[in-house]
Amino acid sequence: MRALYPGSFDPLTLGHLDLIARATRLFDAVVVAVLQNPGKRPAFPLEQRLAQIRGATGHLGGVEVGSFDGLTVEYARRCGAQVILRGLRALSDFEFELQIAHTNQSLDPRVETLFLATAVHHSFLSSSVVKEVARFGGDVGHMVPAGVAQDLARLFNQDASRGGSDG
Amino acid sequence: MRALYPGSFDPLTLGHLDLIARATRLFDAVVVAVLQNPGKRPAFPLEQRLAQIRGATGHLGGVEVGSFDGLTVEYARRCGAQVILRGLRALSDFEFELQIAHTNQSLDPRVETLFLATAVHHSFLSSSVVKEVARFGGDVGHMVPAGVAQDLARLFNQDASRGGSDG
Amino acid sequence: MRALYPGSFDPLTLGHLDLIARATRLFDAVVVAVLQNPGKRPAFPLEQRLAQIRGATGHLGGVEVGSFDGLTVEYARRCGAQVILRGLRALSDFEFELQIAHTNQSLDPRVETLFLATAVHHSFLSSSVVKEVARFGGDVGHMVPAGVAQDLARLFNQDASRGGSDG
Amino acid sequence: MRALYPGSFDPLTLGHLDLIARATRLFDAVVVAVLQNPGKRPAFPLEQRLAQIRGATGHLGGVEVGSFDGLTVEYARRCGAQVILRGLRALSDFEFELQIAHTNQSLDPRVETLFLATAVHHSFLSSSVVKEVARFGGDVGHMVPAGVAQDLARLFNQDASRGGSDG
Amino acid sequence: MRALYPGSFDPLTLGHLDLIARATRLFDAVVVAVLQNPGKRPAFPLEQRLAQIRGATGHLGGVEVGSFDGLTVEYARRCGAQVILRGLRALSDFEFELQIAHTNQSLDPRVETLFLATAVHHSFLSSSVVKEVARFGGDVGHMVPAGVAQDLARLFNQDASRGGSDG
Amino acid sequence: MRALYPGSFDPLTLGHLDLIARATRLFDAVVVAVLQNPGKRPAFPLEQRLAQIRGATGHLGGVEVGSFDGLTVEYARRCGAQVILRGLRALSDFEFELQIAHTNQSLDPRVETLFLATAVHHSFLSSSVVKEVARFGGDVGHMVPAGVAQDLARLFNQDASRGGSDG
Repeated sequence: MRALYPGSFDPLTLGHLDLIARATRLFDAVVVAVLQNPGKRPAFPLEQRLAQIRGATGHLGGVEVGSFDGLTVEYARRCGAQVILRGLRALSDFEFELQIAHTNQSLDPRVETLFLATAVHHSFLSSSVVKEVARFGGDVGHMVPAGVAQDLARLFNQDASRGGSDG
Repeated sequence: MRALYPGSFDPLTLGHLDLIARATRLFDAVVVAVLQNPGKRPAFPLEQRLAQIRGATGHLGGVEVGSFDGLTVEYARRCGAQVILRGLRALSDFEFELQIAHTNQSLDPRVETLFLATAVHHSFLSSSVVKEVARFGGDVGHMVPAGVAQDLARLFNQDASRGGSDG
Repeated sequence: MRALYPGSFDPLTLGHLDLIARATRLFDAVVVAVLQNPGKRPAFPLEQRLAQIRGATGHLGGVEVGSFDGLTVEYARRCGAQVILRGLRALSDFEFELQIAHTNQSLDPRVETLFLATAVHHSFLSSSVVKEVARFGGDVGHMVPAGVAQDLARLFNQDASRGGSDG
Repeated sequence: MRALYPGSFDPLTLGHLDLIARATRLFDAVVVAVLQNPGKRPAFPLEQRLAQIRGATGHLGGVEVGSFDGLTVEYARRCGAQVILRGLRALSDFEFELQIAHTNQSLDPRVETLFLATAVHHSFLSSSVVKEVARFGGDVGHMVPAGVAQDLARLFNQDASRGGSDG
Repeated sequence: MRALYPGSFDPLTLGHLDLIARATRLFDAVVVAVLQNPGKRPAFPLEQRLAQIRGATGHLGGVEVGSFDGLTVEYARRCGAQVILRGLRALSDFEFELQIAHTNQSLDPRVETLFLATAVHHSFLSSSVVKEVARFGGDVGHMVPAGVAQDLARLFNQDASRGGSDG
Repeated sequence: MRALYPGSFDPLTLGHLDLIARATRLFDAVVVAVLQNPGKRPAFPLEQRLAQIRGATGHLGGVEVGSFDGLTVEYARRCGAQVILRGLRALSDFEFELQIAHTNQSLDPRVETLFLATAVHHSFLSSSVVKEVARFGGDVGHMVPAGVAQDLARLFNQDASRGGSDG
C-alpha cells in the first residue's frame, strides 16, 4: 500500500519526521508531498522545503518526495496512493482535519484518509510555533531537524553557529 | 415570529439552504441577510450573493433577502425580527457562535439567538471549503445550489458546462 | 408555535429558569417536561420535581408542566410541539446535545431542535454541581430558585432556615 | 498488513460496519475483536455480539472475528496485527481516543493506531444511542444491521415483526 | 513572587482588568507587558495601549507596566518574574494557550505558566469583539474601562459623549 | 503563599507528582489533599493513598499531605491556602475544570484557582488509565511512582517482582 502525506511543511518539524518514520514501517512507500498553496506566502520557497525533507528523510527507506497544487485526492491518484496520511496532535485542529477528510471522501470515495497520533512529546509543535520562536532567536534544536534549524537561523539573519540566544 | 438569518454567504451552500428551508416551516418570515464586512474581500460581490440567494430560495414561501452593515441586533430590530438564527455544524466553531450570541445578548437582550443543527450530511460543508475545491476544479455539485456552482465555475475561469468531474 | 423543553430537572436551576422565561417571550406555549429515565435514580422523585417547576414558573404566562418516558419526539407530537428547546452552556456538552438533536431528526424530521445559549452568569451551573455543593452544606442561593434551595437543604438533612452560609 | 479493530460492539452499528467495509479495501485482513470488559454489564452477551458481527460481515472478504480480554496491544501481537484501527466520529470523544492511542504506544511502540473518519451520515451514531432509541420502541432500522435490529427488538420485549415504526 | 502578564491588549478589556486585580492579591508584583508583534498591525499604537493600561490600573497596588518584543520567557527573566500569567475564558482557545505554555516550558523550564479562569460574566469578551462592536457604533461601556471606551469612540470617528448609538 | 492541590489521587501518577514538584518551587507550601468522595468507591482506601503520596513526595520540601470531605473552598480556608491548584492535561476535561473553578469562585471569591499545564509527556496519563493497564498486567512503571506500582500489582493479585507481563 502506498500512502500520501501532504502538507505545507513550512518548515518540516520533528513531529512531521517522527510520523514519516513510523509510516515507513507500515506502508510500501510514503510520498511526502508539499502542497503549493497560491494563496499563502511561505517562509521557505518550494525548492528549499523539498530539500529540507529530502535531507531529513534520506536515511529512511521507502520515502518519495514531491509537490503538487490542485486537489489532494487527484494527486493521490496520480502518485498511486490509496490513502492520505495526516497527523493528529493532542493540540491539533481535530475538527479542521475531519472536515478536510470528509470533503476528500465526498470528492473521491476510493481514497481513504488515515490519521496517526503525533508523538506525545511533539504534540505542542507546529511549523508556526517553530517560526515564531526562531524569529526571536529562541533555540529550536529540539523542534526541527538540524538542517532546518540552520535554514531558520539564516532566514532570520542570525549566525547559525550561535544557536538560540537562550539555549 | 420573524427570524433573521445573517451571514456572509460567500457563497450560499446547500447547508445554508437546508437550514433556510427548515426555518420557513417554523417562522412567519425568514430574513436571509448578507452581512457586508468592510474588512473582508469577498469572492462574490454583494449583488451576486443576493442573486444567488434569491435564485435558490425562490421556491420557498416566507423568505426575504436583504443586506446590512453595522450591528446585527440593530438590523434585527429594523427588519422586525425577534430572533437571530444560526446554524451549528457538527464541525463548527461552537465557541465562536456562542461568543457572538452572548455579545449580541449584552447589546440588546430583547433579541434572542436560536441555533439549529446543520443537517448531518452537510456538516463538513463551509463556504471556504467550497471555494477551495472549486478553485482546483473539483466537483461542487453536491455542495452548492446549481446557480452557485455555475458562478463558481465562471469565477475560476472554467467552462461551467464541463461540470466539475474533478478531472 | 409550541415548544417542548425536556430535561431531568433534578433539580431545576436558575439556568433552566432563565431559559424558560426567555422562551415564553418567543413561543405561544413552553411545555417544560420531566423525562423519566428508568435507568437513573434521581435525587428528587418525579412529583417533587414537577412541584419545583410549577412553583418557580407560576409567575410566567404560557408555561405548561408535564412528564414523560419514551422518545422525546413522540412526546413532542403528543403535546403538539413543533420544536424541542435545549440550552447550550458555555461549558456544556455541545457534542452530546448535537448527537441527541441529530438522532431526534432521524426519528422524526418534522420536529426541529432549537438551541438557546444559557445566560453567561449561569454558564457554570448544572444540576449535578448544585447537588454536590448542597450536599456539603454550601450556599446554593445563587444557583437555584428559593423553593429548590429549601428542598435541597431538607434532602441533605439540614435546617433550611439556617441557609447554606457554607459555614 | 493485518489490522485489529477492537471495540465493545454492544451492539454493532452501521457506523462500525461502514468502517469495517472500508478497512477491508485497505488491509489484507481486518480482525474485528470484541473487548470483554469485566467492569461493564453489556446489553448483549459476548456470543451474541460475535454472531451479530459475523452475520453482518459475512459478505465481506478478509474479515476475522474474535474476542479478548487484557491489553489491546498484546492481543494485536497475538493475532499478528501491526495496526489498531479506530473510528473518529464528528461527534466523538477525540481526546479519549487519543489518550488510549498514546497509552498503547507507551506500552508497545511497535503497534500503531490508525484512525478513520466515520462516514458523515453515521457521525451521530453510537451503540448507546441505538439502545436508548430501541428501548423506547423507536425505529433503529437506519442505525444498525437488520440482524441487530431484530436482536434489539427481542431484548426490549417487542414483537420484532412490528419493527420500530415508532408510531 | 513576581508574575508577568503578557498580551496584545489591543485594547485592554474589563476581562483583562479583572484578572490583573485578582492577580495583585496573589503576587508581590504583576508586570503587565504589551507584546509588540511586528507581524500584526494593532488598532492602537504601543504608547496608547500602555497609557490605557496605566490609566485603568492606577488604583491597584503592585502593578508594573512594560512592553517587549522577543521571547516571553526571556522577558520574564529580565523582569524577574518566576511565572507567566494567562487567562482562560470559558470560550477561549484553550489549546492555543496550552501550546504556548508547553513551548515556553521547553524553552525555559524555570519559568512556569499559571492560568486563571476569566470571570464568568466576561467570558465572552475579547479585544476583537470589542473593536467589532465599537466599529459599528455599539455600546462597549460594559466591556472596557472608561478610558478605552473613549479611545475606541475616537478611533472610529465618533463623538465619545454620544456613547453607543444603540445604548 | 500556600497552595492547596486537591484530588482523588486514586492512585497518584507521575503527572500528579511532576505538578507537585513544580509547585513546590513556586509556593511556600503545597498541601496535597485527598478528597473523600462518599459517592465513589476508590480502588485504594484513604490511608493507602495518603501513604502513597507521602512516600512519593518525601524528598520534596514544603509538601503537606492531608484529606478532607466537604467543600474544597472551606478546606482551603482551614489550611490557610489562598489558591487551589489544578493540572490541565493536553487531553484533559478543560470544561469540567473550569466549571469547578467558577463554582468555587462563586462560593468564596477570596480563594483563587490556578491551573498548571501538565508536563507534555504525561499528558495522556490519568488514574483511570493506570488502573486499566495494571488490571490487565501491563507495565505501569513509566506512569506511577515505584511505590504505587507495587500497590497496583498487589491490588490486582500479581507478583510485584514480575513487573508488567508485556514489558
